[in-house]
Order: sequence, then C-alpha cells, then structure tokens
Amino acid sequence: MSGSERAVKVVVALGGNALEDKALPPTAESQLQVVNRTANYLAQLSCEGYELAIVHGNGPQVGRILLASEAAAQVTPAMPFDVCGAMSQGYIGYHIQQGMRRALKERGLNIPVVTVVTQVVVDEQDPAFQNPVKPIGPFYSKEEALKLATEQRYAMREDAGRGWRRVVPSPRPVRIVEIGTLQTLWSTTISIACGGGGIPVVEQPDGSLKGVAAVIDKDLAAMELAIEMDADILMILTEVQEVALNFRTPQEKKLELVSVSEMEGYVKQGHFAPGSMLPKVEAALGFVRSGHGRRAVITSLDRCLDALQGRCGTWISG
Amino acid sequence: MSGSERAVKVVVALGGNALEDKALPPTAESQLQVVNRTANYLAQLSCEGYELAIVHGNGPQVGRILLASEAAAQVTPAMPFDVCGAMSQGYIGYHIQQGMRRALKERGLNIPVVTVVTQVVVDEQDPAFQNPVKPIGPFYSKEEALKLATEQRYAMREDAGRGWRRVVPSPRPVRIVEIGTLQTLWSTTISIACGGGGIPVVEQPDGSLKGVAAVIDKDLAAMELAIEMDADILMILTEVQEVALNFRTPQEKKLELVSVSEMEGYVKQGHFAPGSMLPKVEAALGFVRSGHGRRAVITSLDRCLDALQGRCGTWISG
Repeated sequence: MSGSERAVKVVVALGGNALEDKALPPTAESQLQVVNRTANYLAQLSCEGYELAIVHGNGPQVGRILLASEAAAQVTPAMPFDVCGAMSQGYIGYHIQQGMRRALKERGLNIPVVTVVTQVVVDEQDPAFQNPVKPIGPFYSKEEALKLATEQRYAMREDAGRGWRRVVPSPRPVRIVEIGTLQTLWSTTISIACGGGGIPVVEQPDGSLKGVAAVIDKDLAAMELAIEMDADILMILTEVQEVALNFRTPQEKKLELVSVSEMEGYVKQGHFAPGSMLPKVEAALGFVRSGHGRRAVITSLDRCLDALQGRCGTWISG
Repeated sequence: MSGSERAVKVVVALGGNALEDKALPPTAESQLQVVNRTANYLAQLSCEGYELAIVHGNGPQVGRILLASEAAAQVTPAMPFDVCGAMSQGYIGYHIQQGMRRALKERGLNIPVVTVVTQVVVDEQDPAFQNPVKPIGPFYSKEEALKLATEQRYAMREDAGRGWRRVVPSPRPVRIVEIGTLQTLWSTTISIACGGGGIPVVEQPDGSLKGVAAVIDKDLAAMELAIEMDADILMILTEVQEVALNFRTPQEKKLELVSVSEMEGYVKQGHFAPGSMLPKVEAALGFVRSGHGRRAVITSLDRCLDALQGRCGTWISG
C-alpha cells in the first residue's frame, strides 16, 4: 500500500480451517470462536488499507444442513441442495459479519461488512455434469444408496470403504449474477460473496435462473470474483504457508515466487493433489492469466498480512 | 410516478401468503411457484418506476429449519435460533431473487435484485425480554417441554390445547446494522432485507454484536427500514384488500383513507387483533409519524399496483 494512491483490492478465499476447528464439536458457538480468530487476521489487512472481499467454503456446514433436512424428512420436506447452499451462505455470512465487525471495531475501524447471497451461473454443457464427483451430505448403506439412486435419481458412489455418498457435479463458474452489486460496494464495504462457491444456477432460454444440485469449487469461484471485480490480488488461504513441490517427501521444496509458466509445468508434473492443492493452484493461475499485473498468493491464514507484505507465501505472477 | 422527477421509494413488507400456499406441501418447488406469482405482482411496481426494497416474513420457514435442526440433534449440534434466522434469510432471499429476476426480465427490465443478510439491533432492556410470547418451532408434549425448560432454559408455553411450544421475546427494532449498504443500493437495486424481521442482535459494550433468541415483527422491521432508508411509502401486503373496523361482524367497515389520529383511535378501541392486523397498523402508524409526507398503505398482494395508484387499500397519512 505504501505511497500508492489507489487501494489494493484483494479477494480472499477462506479455507475450511478458517470457519471451524475439527477438534471441537461443530456447534454455532465453537464456530463463531474460530470465525472471530479468522476475523482478527483479516482485520489486520484492513488496517493496512487493503480493500477486501471474502469468499468462504461451506462443505461441512452444508453437509450438516443436508443431514438435518433429511433427518426431518418425515415431518417436513427435505430442501434441495441449492436451497441448502443458500442457507449456508446466510449462516456462515452472518457469523463472518459479526466476527469482522468485532475485529474491525477493536482496531478502530468502522468498515461495513455485508453478506450478499450470491448465485453463480454454470454451463449446463459443462462436462462435469456427465461425471458427478463431489461427495455431499451423509454416508449411507448400500441399500439406502440404491433407494436414493432409484427414487431420487441421485448419483451415489462408494467412498473409500466408509459407506455410500451422494455425488454432485462440480462445474466451473461462468458468471457471478450479483456482480454489479458487489462492484458497487467494493470501495466502501467488505462483501462476503460466493459462499460455498456460490449457489450454482443455469440460465434458461428466457433469461431466468434455475438452481442445480452442484458444487462450484470455492477457490475457482473466488478466482471468478477477483476477475470480475478487477481485483489486484487473489489470496487463497489454506493450512500451509507455502505451496510445495514433492509435498511431504524428503525432496519437498517450498515455492516462493513462481511464474505462470513455471507453475503450469509443476501442475503437469502432478505435484498438486486434485481436490486439495490443485484447485487452489488452478484458481491462482486462472486469475493471473486473466489480466496484466494481476497476482495471486497462496498462504496460511495466520500469515496473511506477512504474505501481502512479501515476507512469505507462494506468489504467482505473470 | 407520472411527471415526478424523483422515483417514489417504497418499502414492501410481504406476508406469509406471498411465500407459500398453505394448501400445498411446503416443498422448495411449491414455494418457488408462489414466490414467482408474488414476483409478478411486485414487478408491476418496477414497471411503473417505483423503487423497491422487500422485507419478508419467515415464520413457517424458520420453524421448519428449527424442526430439522432439532430432529438431527443426535448426529449434529442443533443451531441456535439466530443462526436459523440467518439461514432462512439466505433461503427465502434466494427464492425471491430468482422470482423477481424472472418477472422483471419478462417485462424487459434488468434491475439487479440482491439479498443482504440483515442484523437488526434490539435493546436488551426491552420489556419484551421479560415476557416471551412469540411461539417458534415444533409442538412438544408436556414432558418434553419440561425437559427443554430445565436443560436448555427455554421458555415454554401451552399453545391453545395443541401442545407445548418454545416462546421467545418479540422486542422492537432499534437500528438496522447494514443500513449503509442498503442506502447505497437503493436507487439502482431491489434489495431484499430484514428477512423474518432481521436477525436480532444486541450491542455489547465494546460495540460488537451478539445474536439473541428473539423474533422481531417483520412489519415493524419494515417500518424501521422505511424510516432509515427515507422511503416515501411503506406498503404492507397481507390477505385483505383493506383494513376493517369491526372485522368479520355485520358492522364491518373497510377503511380507505385515514389520518394518524383516527387510526390511533381505532387502535385504542381494540379493532385490530394482536399478532395479526395490530402490528401492521402500528408499523404503518410508526412510519407515517416519523416524518413529513410519509405515507403507509395496507392492502393485498394482488392489488399492490392498484393500491399505489390510489384505487384501493387502506392509506394512512399525517
């Protein structure tokens, strides 16, 4: 920030560890504690003048909403997955609003923090719809799975010996429906948007939208948001301070500053695990490739300010 | 609108019949159908140039979220009532966004529609906290009720021979936390705000907010929104086209245009049922009293345009 006239705009993607502590029971109270800690880190960025928008995951939370919805299906109709996603945006967004407000107030800042319920358009022709891979909700026995497959036409898959789960497609984000509002709010407000990757919708011939049972990767949604909001930096927060080659081997090598073409090479060499570091690296690459001067950083939540100040993290630039 | 230079700003409060049809099972699909019909009425107002903000109730919906959350409590912690309210804002707001977009597109309008997750400050000293009266969630047996009263410290009340229910306080709205954002969006965007009356929060000594188990009347929340947004008209939509004196008696008399002092007199005479028409009349009165030129109208959803054009509805003015 030092000396620049225009504030640096950062889209922050929060990982699961920013929202709940797996060692604690997932009560609202324990989650709010974790969110408060997360907010303390993010508020440091606001103190330094960075303008933020926040994207968060929702995997465990929407899983529990689904679980509850299905547990009560005898007395009240279970809600479809898009509606469960909308619920999770309300719930997690509300917690982040409270946490950020507290953390900002403690630092003497009065920046409004709002949650915008966000729909993200996906393409019905996306090949992901032919190959649903993303597991959601509870585990079932084989018999229950067969019943759901026939009665509800759910795609079901056996999950590593732990039982059967419903799987949904994970299409790529095409367009953020509420982008105009998010752009309007950028310079004055911290917006929480695209929670859980956004509610996936497909555009109908008449221009209306229809929710679909799918999960958009939240890092790719954050990439799309950063592109559409013309952000300067996409910051993906996770559990490690740097991305590593040969992760967890004696040859492990942490990456500091890498170019797009170097990173593309590492991707091809298979250094990053699908469903884990790979989508983060792809989101980072997608943002950096989208426009001149755009940069991305992958680091840990607790080092977010250090990373923005160039002291750590894996930086990808053009 | 005709001839005026500044658009007329209307805060619309939607009743339960705008969100679901009690004759249908409360599936997401049937609710979306009802919301689409509601949106067709509201989009007529946009065609005529009125600028809208939308407030909706959430009673049945949050009741079912609570029910599901409690039904699954053996496997995943039940969520507190404020979080259930936040979920309901996400879910209902998402449906209204889709319905309004469709209805606006059909009329050639491209007005953005967004849901802002809204917290509403209430006063911990509000006398309502000493006398919880608003029933929420499922019915229980006397034994279950006693257990909840002792273990969870819930206030429980017998409900007209139908069983026991949890009751929560219904404090008055003091201040809308996200008002700045809503003001920013007013002239360009249809905001869905204060869903279910808003998530009730109390302000802590350090300025942070804390959710409480309470229900703010959605008509009073709409009144507060209309005041803080400096709206021209508060429109409360319900099942009847006009407010009536001696309702459902041979002496029934529909009200067309009434002054604040006349309406206050009718309130004192006990014409309006608490928990039904009374809060609507009080919200209308509160808005009209709050500033010069402010007007309120109570009418039915299907006559909303006719009412704004002066052809029906009960109008209250200074």
